[in-house]
Amino acid sequence: MAEVASAAGVSSATVSYVLSGKRAVAPATRAAVESAIAELGFTVNATARSLRTGRSSLAALIVPDIANPFYAQLASSLQEQLRASGLHVVVCNTGADREEERALLAEAVQQRFAGVVITPFRLHPEDLDTLAEAGIPAVVSADVSFGAVDLVKPDARSATLQALQRVTANQRRRIAVIAGPRDATGGDPRLAMLRRLAPQFGISLPRELVVRGEHTRDSGAVGFTELMSRRERPDAVFCANDMIAVGAMDAAHDLGVDIPGEVALVGHDDAAFASLVRPRLTTIRYPAHDVGVAAAQLLKERLDGRTAPRTVRVRALFVARGSA
Amino acid sequence: MAEVASAAGVSSATVSYVLSGKRAVAPATRAAVESAIAELGFTVNATARSLRTGRSSLAALIVPDIANPFYAQLASSLQEQLRASGLHVVVCNTGADREEERALLAEAVQQRFAGVVITPFRLHPEDLDTLAEAGIPAVVSADVSFGAVDLVKPDARSATLQALQRVTANQRRRIAVIAGPRDATGGDPRLAMLRRLAPQFGISLPRELVVRGEHTRDSGAVGFTELMSRRERPDAVFCANDMIAVGAMDAAHDLGVDIPGEVALVGHDDAAFASLVRPRLTTIRYPAHDVGVAAAQLLKERLDGRTAPRTVRVRALFVARGSA
Repeated sequence: MAEVASAAGVSSATVSYVLSGKRAVAPATRAAVESAIAELGFTVNATARSLRTGRSSLAALIVPDIANPFYAQLASSLQEQLRASGLHVVVCNTGADREEERALLAEAVQQRFAGVVITPFRLHPEDLDTLAEAGIPAVVSADVSFGAVDLVKPDARSATLQALQRVTANQRRRIAVIAGPRDATGGDPRLAMLRRLAPQFGISLPRELVVRGEHTRDSGAVGFTELMSRRERPDAVFCANDMIAVGAMDAAHDLGVDIPGEVALVGHDDAAFASLVRPRLTTIRYPAHDVGVAAAQLLKERLDGRTAPRTVRVRALFVARGSA
Repeated sequence: MAEVASAAGVSSATVSYVLSGKRAVAPATRAAVESAIAELGFTVNATARSLRTGRSSLAALIVPDIANPFYAQLASSLQEQLRASGLHVVVCNTGADREEERALLAEAVQQRFAGVVITPFRLHPEDLDTLAEAGIPAVVSADVSFGAVDLVKPDARSATLQALQRVTANQRRRIAVIAGPRDATGGDPRLAMLRRLAPQFGISLPRELVVRGEHTRDSGAVGFTELMSRRERPDAVFCANDMIAVGAMDAAHDLGVDIPGEVALVGHDDAAFASLVRPRLTTIRYPAHDVGVAAAQLLKERLDGRTAPRTVRVRALFVARGSA
């Protein structure tokens, strides 16, 4: 570093500022230092280089549940799309815990990742400020807006209408929902959508038929069992995701409840196992591949210099199978 | 940095060597620099800190197929075990491609990850040298030894014996295998184990009943279809993992082959969906949770200074369900 300083005619401290970006350095001085580095063939290791460029070649995908195959598909898609840009994707699992979500964002800053794609679960929009301050582009994949960041968002209205159509066409009137937890960021937009559209079919979602829990298989089993203990049982159950729906199937099996005979069951996402379970799961497909393509596109635009936030909507599709 | 140099009574270059570890510095000099840094409250950012400590607080889990839920379980287990050590786990997907495996190891070095747990697929043992040179501890999870590194390895002999016992007890004699690809590191140890144990049951694995492919659902469907085109069809099929087995079920369904009536099917791993498919999959459970515990333990021992490589064996269990 002393050699670089002497070749550039500046102090070692200045070289350090250029490398670390910790203090502003006049452009001409910076240029002198950089050319001295280049001339001396000063080989910096990657960490030192990331000090200089402020960017590693890793992008983080931060998800609430790595056991949900929806996110594995999203990861593969993102990876495929970013490969040509020389970026590798690392997947970070928050377990739907806000402290983990925040801790992983802090890691992304510390490691100077090239970008972050995140499906927040309990995160608050202001938690993303740390990325913005570090100049790390963020893309949020969520059903609700999330402050002034790039967003990939579903367009699930039409698919939800079709699902309600299918269920009510069979004279089912007592529609239940196993929704996400009350403290999830933005509440449960899938529940909100059902509430908004149900009146078109002459039905409502009575309060006693909405239960809440995590987006997990266990939570689906608990929620379904709870619903079946109601004095008036539901004849259809919508689940906030497919993991919940599979848990509901577990419980239905244990309780001897016939699906779809007694209760129609609708999932959300079309995760890889949705077509493996019996009966095959009727669900609202949120195409993970397309979400990955959109997120990668937004991230690349940011790395290319776009500054104004942009939202891309990805269309969800109703997939009718055996469970409803 | 100049301030630190002056306080420690050394040159800026020396400070830089201490920070980067690029050249050896006498212990007393290093101590002087470090205490000057501490006294001055010199706040280094994380990248600069990783230059000094040579270690980030991320550990990488590098896997061949992030869509295989076995690895999601392994990731969760590893994460849970390493949390108390202040480490976060990032999951990297190689797609079973050697170039990706190598590239991700290079990234782990560049980012100065605290450690790497890897399930190699096509990697060669010498590809790990890059980690050793960078002083980054590696733990390999594999069925075969992998040079002088820490290894988590299955003990599947007894489970495989039970699986063969079960299948042959039903008078099945034509045992087929859908194995991994020929160029996988170490070949296919699960196939080798079957070959070794089959004679105890008076059977062999004829060459025409061993087909090979990737560890994927698609590849399982192709392999099963190929086996069903043999003049003498097999009456039992062992699969190198559960993804292959589920693909075999897809093909059996399409071909109208009854499982287990016509063909018994045995998977390997007991991935999350093994109990979801119908018939439920009979499989050899390789407990992902225990693999994560063992890998975390080995990694922590390395970080605590152990230098001699160690192997931990994790017992596999036969799980009899409906498919065989």
